[in-house]
Amino acid sequence: MSDHFDRIRDSFARQSFMQTLQVRLDHIGHGRCTLVAPVLPTTTQQHGAGHAGVTFTLGDVAAGYAALSVLPDGTEVMTAEIKINLLRPAMGELLEATGEVLKAGRRLVVVKSDIHAISGGKRALIATMLGTMVPVDP
Amino acid sequence: MSDHFDRIRDSFARQSFMQTLQVRLDHIGHGRCTLVAPVLPTTTQQHGAGHAGVTFTLGDVAAGYAALSVLPDGTEVMTAEIKINLLRPAMGELLEATGEVLKAGRRLVVVKSDIHAISGGKRALIATMLGTMVPVDP
Amino acid sequence: MSDHFDRIRDSFARQSFMQTLQVRLDHIGHGRCTLVAPVLPTTTQQHGAGHAGVTFTLGDVAAGYAALSVLPDGTEVMTAEIKINLLRPAMGELLEATGEVLKAGRRLVVVKSDIHAISGGKRALIATMLGTMVPVDP
Amino acid sequence: MSDHFDRIRDSFARQSFMQTLQVRLDHIGHGRCTLVAPVLPTTTQQHGAGHAGVTFTLGDVAAGYAALSVLPDGTEVMTAEIKINLLRPAMGELLEATGEVLKAGRRLVVVKSDIHAISGGKRALIATMLGTMVPVDP
Repeated sequence: MSDHFDRIRDSFARQSFMQTLQVRLDHIGHGRCTLVAPVLPTTTQQHGAGHAGVTFTLGDVAAGYAALSVLPDGTEVMTAEIKINLLRPAMGELLEATGEVLKAGRRLVVVKSDIHAISGGKRALIATMLGTMVPVDP
Repeated sequence: MSDHFDRIRDSFARQSFMQTLQVRLDHIGHGRCTLVAPVLPTTTQQHGAGHAGVTFTLGDVAAGYAALSVLPDGTEVMTAEIKINLLRPAMGELLEATGEVLKAGRRLVVVKSDIHAISGGKRALIATMLGTMVPVDP
Repeated sequence: MSDHFDRIRDSFARQSFMQTLQVRLDHIGHGRCTLVAPVLPTTTQQHGAGHAGVTFTLGDVAAGYAALSVLPDGTEVMTAEIKINLLRPAMGELLEATGEVLKAGRRLVVVKSDIHAISGGKRALIATMLGTMVPVDP
Repeated sequence: MSDHFDRIRDSFARQSFMQTLQVRLDHIGHGRCTLVAPVLPTTTQQHGAGHAGVTFTLGDVAAGYAALSVLPDGTEVMTAEIKINLLRPAMGELLEATGEVLKAGRRLVVVKSDIHAISGGKRALIATMLGTMVPVDP
């Protein structure tokens, strides 16, 4: 099992976009993954808040690794589709995304993600996502 | 009208994340916006394809400015929600996202986006999005 | 408050489709609504399970009244958009849908619904939904 | 091919809910399906318009048979997920839903549907849907 999580960490480390966004893999467990990233001067929208594209990216990647964590070792996973509802602007120093498996099937893994912004120690839910991951052979 | 489009170009230029992703505002017209961006070494996923988060970002921003283009000058727009179906990996040199207004209401603007990857001169549809923008006073 | 809930019950009673589907308003509280309906011989798909359209209808109506319950009296609510992920076939005698408010804003109310099938006393989650309700003046 | 379409017509005829809603399979072609249904006194919401659950059902079934039409004979199809954006109330005598395949893969078929209301000979787009069908062995 720890090997399985190691391979998830390796996969995460190979995503150059995660480094560009300075995302850290905070936690990976069975059916659950948490990522943390700063709101950077290079990742804002026109009013200085974190860009919705970053919020989406964090939620999508967290959900993808949550799905991967429940699949047999050696499988890979792709996002088939995912929907985001944006609840509040991404104001704060940090963003935290937690992905979770709702139903793991052989063909499809249904996932959700919640993304919080952390500002001065206060957490606010800024987005919630619902999507479908599809296991693929590498 | 050209003033209105100039203000859209200004808003676009203020998004630092657009510069980080090297996105260019290719076209803005009434109810329609096209963006173009390279697949960069800094924006890939674990297999070297363009990251789904970039695909999403392009489609979301294109849809947002398509919505803004049909709203009264001085209004701003926020993504309330948007869904992406990913059809193919983002393989290629360039990504092109076209956002379009499906229905402009007073409270909500329903939008779609199609995102193509361009590889060696060939275009392939890699994702399609359907969402809701909400007009807000700045 | 009980007046407010009475008006929700009145609105529910005016929906002829709720009678056609034999839906019962089981519970309405602040930000939460539960509906129950039988799987009828008249509401199945080609393999005899409950039709996905019924599952959707229950989840959508439960989410709509959950949203209405947190809005000022006299307001009405419309579904702007909603997404359903179907997890299992709707096998069983009864369907139970619970709608919940995730975020109540002035312009938009973000909602979720979970739909369970009950078969021989056992409950199974058959679908989950995420959507947006928009308050309107009647 | 006509055998394949005959089997689709058979499958449609076995859905009791289609009869309850008086839905007619108007057209089935490769990657495309059109359904027509009346707005009935038994299928309205609280203001007398057609119920959103009916609109959804028509769009979902049209999309499902559009997907089935491009799959090998003997396969069945299930909705994995689908999203609906409601654009206008379902006012009119008739509803017409057209489902279309956007991308047919081995594992997943991405589909869209548009639903129009027809009132006094005038057609209005009342909803648009984007979803994912999954081929299953019967």
